Amino acid sequence: MTSFDHTAFNHKKYTPFKPVAIKNRTWPDNDITKAPIWSSVDLRDGNQALVEPMTVEQKKQFFALLVDVGFKEIEVGFPAASQLDFDFVRWLIEEDQVPDDVYVQVLTQARPELIERTYESLKGAKKAIVHVYNSTSKTQREQVFRMDMEGIKKIAVDGAKCVKEHAKKHPETEWVFQYSPESFTGTEIDYAIEVVDAVVDVWQPTPDNKVIINLPATVEVSTPNRYADQIEYFCRNVKKRDCMFVSLHTHNDRGCGVAAAELGIMAGADRIEGTLLGNGERTGNMDIVTMAMNIYSQGIDPKLALGDMDRIISVVQACTLLQVHPRHPYAGELVFTAFSGSHQDAIKKCLANQTDDKPWDVAYLPIDPRDVGRSYQEVIRVNSQSGKGGIAYTLEQEFGLALPRWLQVEFSPIVQKFAEQAGGVVNAESMKDLFESSFMTGTTPYNLGRYDLAKDDVDTVNAELVSNDTKVRITGNGNGALSAFSEALGKHFNMRVDIIQYQEHALTVGSDSQAIAYVQANINGDRFNGVAIDNDIVSASIQALLATVNQKVNQSKDAAVA
Amino acid sequence: MTSFDHTAFNHKKYTPFKPVAIKNRTWPDNDITKAPIWSSVDLRDGNQALVEPMTVEQKKQFFALLVDVGFKEIEVGFPAASQLDFDFVRWLIEEDQVPDDVYVQVLTQARPELIERTYESLKGAKKAIVHVYNSTSKTQREQVFRMDMEGIKKIAVDGAKCVKEHAKKHPETEWVFQYSPESFTGTEIDYAIEVVDAVVDVWQPTPDNKVIINLPATVEVSTPNRYADQIEYFCRNVKKRDCMFVSLHTHNDRGCGVAAAELGIMAGADRIEGTLLGNGERTGNMDIVTMAMNIYSQGIDPKLALGDMDRIISVVQACTLLQVHPRHPYAGELVFTAFSGSHQDAIKKCLANQTDDKPWDVAYLPIDPRDVGRSYQEVIRVNSQSGKGGIAYTLEQEFGLALPRWLQVEFSPIVQKFAEQAGGVVNAESMKDLFESSFMTGTTPYNLGRYDLAKDDVDTVNAELVSNDTKVRITGNGNGALSAFSEALGKHFNMRVDIIQYQEHALTVGSDSQAIAYVQANINGDRFNGVAIDNDIVSASIQALLATVNQKVNQSKDAAVA
Repeated sequence: MTSFDHTAFNHKKYTPFKPVAIKNRTWPDNDITKAPIWSSVDLRDGNQALVEPMTVEQKKQFFALLVDVGFKEIEVGFPAASQLDFDFVRWLIEEDQVPDDVYVQVLTQARPELIERTYESLKGAKKAIVHVYNSTSKTQREQVFRMDMEGIKKIAVDGAKCVKEHAKKHPETEWVFQYSPESFTGTEIDYAIEVVDAVVDVWQPTPDNKVIINLPATVEVSTPNRYADQIEYFCRNVKKRDCMFVSLHTHNDRGCGVAAAELGIMAGADRIEGTLLGNGERTGNMDIVTMAMNIYSQGIDPKLALGDMDRIISVVQACTLLQVHPRHPYAGELVFTAFSGSHQDAIKKCLANQTDDKPWDVAYLPIDPRDVGRSYQEVIRVNSQSGKGGIAYTLEQEFGLALPRWLQVEFSPIVQKFAEQAGGVVNAESMKDLFESSFMTGTTPYNLGRYDLAKDDVDTVNAELVSNDTKVRITGNGNGALSAFSEALGKHFNMRVDIIQYQEHALTVGSDSQAIAYVQANINGDRFNGVAIDNDIVSASIQALLATVNQKVNQSKDAAVA
Repeated sequence: MTSFDHTAFNHKKYTPFKPVAIKNRTWPDNDITKAPIWSSVDLRDGNQALVEPMTVEQKKQFFALLVDVGFKEIEVGFPAASQLDFDFVRWLIEEDQVPDDVYVQVLTQARPELIERTYESLKGAKKAIVHVYNSTSKTQREQVFRMDMEGIKKIAVDGAKCVKEHAKKHPETEWVFQYSPESFTGTEIDYAIEVVDAVVDVWQPTPDNKVIINLPATVEVSTPNRYADQIEYFCRNVKKRDCMFVSLHTHNDRGCGVAAAELGIMAGADRIEGTLLGNGERTGNMDIVTMAMNIYSQGIDPKLALGDMDRIISVVQACTLLQVHPRHPYAGELVFTAFSGSHQDAIKKCLANQTDDKPWDVAYLPIDPRDVGRSYQEVIRVNSQSGKGGIAYTLEQEFGLALPRWLQVEFSPIVQKFAEQAGGVVNAESMKDLFESSFMTGTTPYNLGRYDLAKDDVDTVNAELVSNDTKVRITGNGNGALSAFSEALGKHFNMRVDIIQYQEHALTVGSDSQAIAYVQANINGDRFNGVAIDNDIVSASIQALLATVNQKVNQSKDAAVA
């Protein structure tokens, strides 16, 4: 066979990162002892890296999540560069959507006409952070802007002046100024400090009225300890350190965005910009969920309420159309599983010892899964000696069902329990029966009757649910049919329904082929799994979601009877 | 609506990690100046964390990849605990599959009967690493094994003796011994050193005949700098440091597995265990692709050939059934994209300056995408003012096609170019024509004729390709129809065909519904995208793959004519 051309793979074309010369660094002796100030950049940096940018509806939903999670500083867009962002900022302010203790943050380049437009978008805001930036790295100066150091510094200083002048005209707003030397990690450190000092000199902050100086790893270019060295050097050498919040904004090009932010905090920074679950340019921004949960796991209040993790996952997935990776720290579908017997045995013994009054101490489970609304999943592979996963293999071979992995993990203990009761072997037919009775519950007590879908800026569903000759009408809105139906169900049954997983595939038996849909939803804090088959893919999806709600309804009834 | 119960989210139940007391640490002044010794644990740690463990066929395919990439130490299983692993080790040895310069590594607990069985599996091996472990952490000692420090140390020492005795009986093999104090990061450091010293005392290594001491972060419990402190302290205080390779094995529970390994190397370690693209228990093992590419990007030979990244992605995805995240460093579908105008402008200017004789220096692109067989993707959103991505939205609304994101990214420049030539507006019909002519190329020059599929341990496909009245028969094997068909095509056309992306969904137009399949394949180093529609899902998939091969064939013809 033709083999791949390996000549392009040549390390010699790269030059190593030049670390900052720092003596007697102190950060490696520091620990993180309190939460930093968090700023979410999901609606700006995150959104700008999406193939399908968020709709206004999605932005509203995401903003509400960020407020509920507890962010007090939220970068909502780049209003001078995007009409959509501009309109969204206006909506936030005019519709009074921003709580009194939350700063709306907006980004702008250091150009007078953009700064002017930025202030237009912010008119009437109670509290706002105006975040102005320009690129300072050698690469950007020489190749993109073709300017010398003085020229680039002048852009920053002129921008800072312009920002200050506009702010004076709107004293009704509580303004905070933020400056980023973009591509900081690629900038000579003494020059970066010189530019920041010049900006600070314009703004004249005081210890009681600080500015924010944000030091982005726009591209991650070094090991995280070298970034921490840059931060410590900066904090030591910048003028008026006591008049600024030093902020970090890391990316994940080398897979170390969280580490860089953590070490940077040890090195003296006060504030972290990032996104929920790490969406952002290229490899993503640093993930605030991971960093905050890391802090949490050390007995420190993260100052963000991340317990309703399934809502976070659900909103982030729906708005970014990026699935959370199954192994994503604290959030992925596989992070609280154990497959090996020795791990399962150790976990079992530790859980038996664990009581509420003792500090958490369970092998292989760094946090209690219940903290984030999850449970520990012991996965036993039934009939797996063939090397093909027994359950999934059987259902696929016999019935053409391609179970998604998350459903295999959920189904495995059900089959295992049945096998123990039935004395061992489980044949294909009884496995299918078990599958249907566990997940294909889209008819009892409620069956899907007629429904109609209207598609516009938002999707609206009107549907009939039929149960024992009674009919109820439900209605809801959302992005897409499933999301609208989930809102309708939630309103009718007074439930919080968050969709965590969704998959479907064609079932091909003859020419009259059908579709099967698999849905996992979190309802009021518990996860349920629903499956449905239909000629129409939208119907299958809706029925699968209804199946999860039926399980919740039946569970509540059972509880009421007991 | 009922709200989520937040009372479970309580940081007070956790105690902070206690760092090692180390004075005058030196690692923060060190840089990584050469590649470590790499050991792949994909076939052991990675495999053991899969919902569907690899089949023998998949293990063979994965092992071949690891050898081709350049690993000289490969942990292939836990033969004493799994018959499948045992058989695989036997196959490797009896079929002479292990190159002369590669060590086969196997894991075993420190128990005599398991050690005996381990040596049985290795009979006749040329070079082998026997990796023996026991848990040493406080949690494991007290809660799982209910033994004191002496008792746990005795398990390690007895295991070491047993390993040594068995090795003596098989002098035909070049043995290397490896010991892991499992859960090292949760073990009191001086005790860990005491246990290792006792094991080393049994093995009596010399500087010319070293043993491997592996220090696992079985669970990641601290910031990465504290792990590095543990490693430096260990290296300073262990006896016979010059008679051992110090090895690291990190996991990713806090999202810092790569950072911990990198800082651990600075702290004195010699060797890294990990997996390709980070599969492994819970949040995964540390990702060797990321760490090796990080080293590469600093102008250092990583000693692994990662240029054929699409083959790595293809094999890892096919064997683990875990998709690579779109933002995975160096490998994800979105890591070489730019969406914002200012990024695109900067990249364009830098690329214009870049020549082969100059070091790589391009804003927003830390490495040249071509090094790993990719290209830079400038994504321009056509008609996206509505906030719904124009192209994808149109194709979905008008024709029911739910384009996967990777295909949106690929289609966008095609539409953009057409729009420029057509003078602006692109209507729905011409967008569909463009889509069909670009991707639905499954008939010219080759059309799929009759085929049959046989399913057994491997899947075998026999198919007819029809072109201008001539018929050719092709045949191939693989895990699944698509993989078998890809082998068949590769053999016939003398091409390397690696499947990177695969998605399908039901098309619902009336009751006679059809399925659409989307395939991205790398053929001899270039990526192609194919789409096909059929009543049968398998046929649709195969035709979509054929569409990519047809594009390659047509491209080669065009090149021959020109």
